[in-house]
Amino acid sequence: MKTVRVSLGPRSYDILIGRDLLDEVGRFVKDRNVARRVFLISNITVFEFYGNKVVDDLEAAGLEVVHLLIPDGERSKNLHTVENIYTYLIAQRADRQTALIALGGGVTGDVVGFVAASYLRGVPYIQIPTTLLAQVDSSVGGKTGVNHCLGKNLIGAFYQPSLVCVDTNSLDTLPAREFQSGLYEVLKYGIIYDEAFFGYLVDNLEKIKERDSEVMASVISRCCEIKAEVTSIDEKEADLRRILNYGHTLGHALESATRYEGFKHGEAIAYGMMAAAHLSQHEGYIDKETQERIDQAVLSIGPLPPAGEVPFSRLMEAMKRDKKREDDRIVFVLLDKIGKTVICSGFEEDRLAAVWDEVLRETR
Amino acid sequence: MKTVRVSLGPRSYDILIGRDLLDEVGRFVKDRNVARRVFLISNITVFEFYGNKVVDDLEAAGLEVVHLLIPDGERSKNLHTVENIYTYLIAQRADRQTALIALGGGVTGDVVGFVAASYLRGVPYIQIPTTLLAQVDSSVGGKTGVNHCLGKNLIGAFYQPSLVCVDTNSLDTLPAREFQSGLYEVLKYGIIYDEAFFGYLVDNLEKIKERDSEVMASVISRCCEIKAEVTSIDEKEADLRRILNYGHTLGHALESATRYEGFKHGEAIAYGMMAAAHLSQHEGYIDKETQERIDQAVLSIGPLPPAGEVPFSRLMEAMKRDKKREDDRIVFVLLDKIGKTVICSGFEEDRLAAVWDEVLRETR
Repeated sequence: MKTVRVSLGPRSYDILIGRDLLDEVGRFVKDRNVARRVFLISNITVFEFYGNKVVDDLEAAGLEVVHLLIPDGERSKNLHTVENIYTYLIAQRADRQTALIALGGGVTGDVVGFVAASYLRGVPYIQIPTTLLAQVDSSVGGKTGVNHCLGKNLIGAFYQPSLVCVDTNSLDTLPAREFQSGLYEVLKYGIIYDEAFFGYLVDNLEKIKERDSEVMASVISRCCEIKAEVTSIDEKEADLRRILNYGHTLGHALESATRYEGFKHGEAIAYGMMAAAHLSQHEGYIDKETQERIDQAVLSIGPLPPAGEVPFSRLMEAMKRDKKREDDRIVFVLLDKIGKTVICSGFEEDRLAAVWDEVLRETR
Repeated sequence: MKTVRVSLGPRSYDILIGRDLLDEVGRFVKDRNVARRVFLISNITVFEFYGNKVVDDLEAAGLEVVHLLIPDGERSKNLHTVENIYTYLIAQRADRQTALIALGGGVTGDVVGFVAASYLRGVPYIQIPTTLLAQVDSSVGGKTGVNHCLGKNLIGAFYQPSLVCVDTNSLDTLPAREFQSGLYEVLKYGIIYDEAFFGYLVDNLEKIKERDSEVMASVISRCCEIKAEVTSIDEKEADLRRILNYGHTLGHALESATRYEGFKHGEAIAYGMMAAAHLSQHEGYIDKETQERIDQAVLSIGPLPPAGEVPFSRLMEAMKRDKKREDDRIVFVLLDKIGKTVICSGFEEDRLAAVWDEVLRETR
């Protein structure tokens, strides 16, 4: 088992990564004295795979367990789901000595995290992410939240979990497209922060695609280390943390313009990462060769759903509404080289349209 | 003008208290560099009195101002109101460089504070409380939140404002019952923390009731000092801050059992404070004489609406649901003497019923 520590003073916590950790969750919760009573919140698919195992293990450790299933999918990541959970918690008399456990992918984690942040002005919570994307991204760093019908993740809080527990076994039951979607975010960490890790990913892509458990534990740990390091320095996204948004300006716009139906989050980010690389090259930060290395790495992970039918004007509109903008200028995280970013804003619409055209040609 | 500093490291802020401060709000916001664009959120009654003055002053200071009116009253302090504000903010493209200003009483402040805590995972906000209750209590300390149909303040966040601005002139337009309701909370600070202040309040009650501006500035400042001190030591209500809940266990239950219609918040707390004093005497903490001094001080502020028709069983039920309980034990803040509290839990229902009977007899 690997442990990555996220250092945030009194809000510090551990990320545990390894095989068969779901068999030890009870002990981890107990050892850390998080709570005596826990609400395990999951979705039906994940609960059918792992729910009973986790409940049994928590109970065996002497914890009182209540479980609650919520709908899955980006479309149910909204205030309505949040309100239903509040009602359930109140009816079951969950108090401040109660912890919530999110067992599932990013949607479950984000929703449960926001409920934990806002129920009784904050109760402890634990993340057990079961998708690769959630393991390397959404479960680490304390960003919680839900969508508004006018935009993604517009409602939420920075609120840190007490523990994150990543069982690499849960990758075995992940659908191929879901796994692949997570790999794009994995690649992002190499691109923005660690050229050697980028090289390792490119060189070991076959083993990674086979979900080799040892390789995956290393890969996930490195991603968590990077995210933990960035988050420790800048918890509230005032500055450094913004580099994690690499690929997200256009990626979020693509998701929003297709109503979160056309693309998996990682797939949209894959498009966004290529667009940011092309824009970096246009702006004179990276050379053509580096941009091509990035395109190749992204495309070698697997095929992307086509994006050519989304009108560019709708992407522009969504980018103008994005919460990362400053005043009315769209902000992009660009690359100075692989492993080093630079934050830029205020691009001409024509320039962005040209970049998007190039990316569409690459992926056709 | 008096300034009370709330020391919370990077989340520290000032409370400004004095006459005619509404004429200087623009400068205060500008000087602190909180934001260039502000959303002034208020209710129709308060906005009619002070809205244009504040808007003009903010604009004169070079700030871009958008204003939004929300319904007032405890019944509109809910997620529905919060959602409407989100929608408005998104439609008006409020970004992270935008600050919210809450101009109004406790409901406006609590709702706007929670929106600020959760919109885009947090934007800055400023409190301009216009009721005495909000000036001494809800605008200080960063407790934000809304009610759930099953209980009061069950949804919310600890989120600190960037500035609190108390113009004592706004007391002039406050209805008598509203003002009186605030005085009960003022008295609470003396009871729990400062016997000399308790004495000062009792001795100067006539001037206070006349809303003498100099006396009121001193009174409000002392309350804010106490709340700032307590909050600085214990921001998240892990320990010391709980003393501020004196009178609130039964007070909240009374509000909840009457669906927030029968009593003003301060009136319910007045009942709660007497109940806590009687319970303290029953438990052997304070003597009969001290309990009578507290009863007298509470009752001399003014008449309370009768509470005899609320069945005690409904109060018990509401107390069992209160978020301050621990496991299933009801927690009371009791008095060791005037100025010093002790936190106790686990009382027999009979004992609480007897105490409540005594209080009802006192107020008949």
